[in-house]
Amino acid sequence: MAEKKYRIGIDLGGTNIKVGVIDREARLLGKKSGRTNPIGRPWQDVAADMARLTKELLQELNITEDECEKLGIGSPGMIDHVHGVVVFAGNFNWLDVPLLAEVRRYFDMPMRLSNDANVAVMGEAVAGAAKGAQNVVMLTLGTGVGGGVVADGRLQEGGSAGGMELGHTIMVMGGQSCTCGQVGCVEAYASASALIRQARQAAEADKSSLMHELCKGNLDNMNGRIPFEAMRGGDASAKQVVDTYVSYVGTAVINFINIWRPEKVLLGGGIANEGDPLIVPVNAYVRPRVFAGERGYIAPITAAALGNDAGIIGAAAM
Amino acid sequence: MAEKKYRIGIDLGGTNIKVGVIDREARLLGKKSGRTNPIGRPWQDVAADMARLTKELLQELNITEDECEKLGIGSPGMIDHVHGVVVFAGNFNWLDVPLLAEVRRYFDMPMRLSNDANVAVMGEAVAGAAKGAQNVVMLTLGTGVGGGVVADGRLQEGGSAGGMELGHTIMVMGGQSCTCGQVGCVEAYASASALIRQARQAAEADKSSLMHELCKGNLDNMNGRIPFEAMRGGDASAKQVVDTYVSYVGTAVINFINIWRPEKVLLGGGIANEGDPLIVPVNAYVRPRVFAGERGYIAPITAAALGNDAGIIGAAAM
Repeated sequence: MAEKKYRIGIDLGGTNIKVGVIDREARLLGKKSGRTNPIGRPWQDVAADMARLTKELLQELNITEDECEKLGIGSPGMIDHVHGVVVFAGNFNWLDVPLLAEVRRYFDMPMRLSNDANVAVMGEAVAGAAKGAQNVVMLTLGTGVGGGVVADGRLQEGGSAGGMELGHTIMVMGGQSCTCGQVGCVEAYASASALIRQARQAAEADKSSLMHELCKGNLDNMNGRIPFEAMRGGDASAKQVVDTYVSYVGTAVINFINIWRPEKVLLGGGIANEGDPLIVPVNAYVRPRVFAGERGYIAPITAAALGNDAGIIGAAAM
Repeated sequence: MAEKKYRIGIDLGGTNIKVGVIDREARLLGKKSGRTNPIGRPWQDVAADMARLTKELLQELNITEDECEKLGIGSPGMIDHVHGVVVFAGNFNWLDVPLLAEVRRYFDMPMRLSNDANVAVMGEAVAGAAKGAQNVVMLTLGTGVGGGVVADGRLQEGGSAGGMELGHTIMVMGGQSCTCGQVGCVEAYASASALIRQARQAAEADKSSLMHELCKGNLDNMNGRIPFEAMRGGDASAKQVVDTYVSYVGTAVINFINIWRPEKVLLGGGIANEGDPLIVPVNAYVRPRVFAGERGYIAPITAAALGNDAGIIGAAAM
């Protein structure tokens, strides 16, 4: 019997299917991608593409399936990790898709399906910004806010579908409406979409703000970078937007430190690409506000490191 | 070598030290208690009393130390479970007390120290209202709000001291001041102390409220039972207090369901003794508000069952 030296990771995204193989040191040996095209074709075809890409990659790497210990898949949407089912994925128009069972038709090895935000933190914990840490919390600040947690070295997924939805914990009771139908969720304040809304509102209230110019006179062009750029240009309204946004991200981080006391907190997603102008003030906001202050360990908050590879590596490593 | 059939649990409280022995089915075979008297005497003496009570109980039960697999201690305060240290316990005036090392002087077996709220959920998970469940969240609604979580059958404690402080997660940014120095914590809204404050305010605003009579004309007599009692007497202000309090407890529960997707959520502590008048509306508040609604499993919320024994059994079982 061949030695099981490798693991396969599949990152199923709205645009691309990305497949990779890692070794025991979580090094990415190779990767391959294809279009997802989830709309208008059966999900079985997407699964078939996932299998085909994987088999092609293994061949290119001269690795046999026998040498692979397991296969992991990260998918957007609400995942039933216990049964390997995509309960729903809005972007895909998928409802109760038994994805893992379908992929099992192509491979004979242990498999696991998890949410993409969960998978990303696992990637960062084995090979990225939290490499070697046993306790990690990661928030992905994108269109929504994804959450992932590693505790005692184990990926946390909750007892059934829909766990670890850190972005849908409520931090402002009675506050902003969230896409989920609730009000006051972390996502409604700390997502890129929320930042854009906050920046638009500030620009509407301050006709002289530099943000208008950066939006080329049309606030429909607002994006998550503009308030940071305007702040660097000395714009007071933009600085206020960023400061307030920092307090939202910071409050979410405080909550998750008070729960998990991780060694590291990571911020990923588009907004985290701002780097220090976001990361430094979030650390400054969080440190004095964690429960019991300096009597406990307060994790440094840093940017995630793996970018797009976090999903592949994490899926393989989980 | 003797078969390791028993486990020892010690529940260190502000008033009493309670010691118990359980068997493999988590049945409490016997218990014993003594006064804690933590103020004005060295903590070493408290540890000596813990050891003495334990040895006396074992003798009464005709069990030898050799037959005991391990010993667990639940303590109030901020606990460094990794090193077995009480980082601080306000009621005891303890700072950085190496309690586990001290108790180790008396026994030769594996030992573990955890926070009392963590320990209580473990007791309920092995022998109480969540018996057999692998994923449980418990909130103890007392003077403060304690939190405990079992995930995948394992007691969750966080990576270092001060984890699982569910009562100190923020659910109302910029809201009520909390005893911890922060604002907007779950504890500042959902503790018994918070309920008493909310009831007092409502009574002050409604001179005709039945709550005045139940307080014998002096609102300093307000307690957590009075708003429930006045509500049953038809008092509209009291009903409003209870409804609002339910929304606070419910919001906290929603957050923790969205994180852990437990099989059961338990409410313990004095306020949970109200039973159905609290439990029924909290369930009604939570169900329609959990992320993804009926597409995911929503845990029933019930009252904890073990009462004072949860601490002993949980300490032994963890």
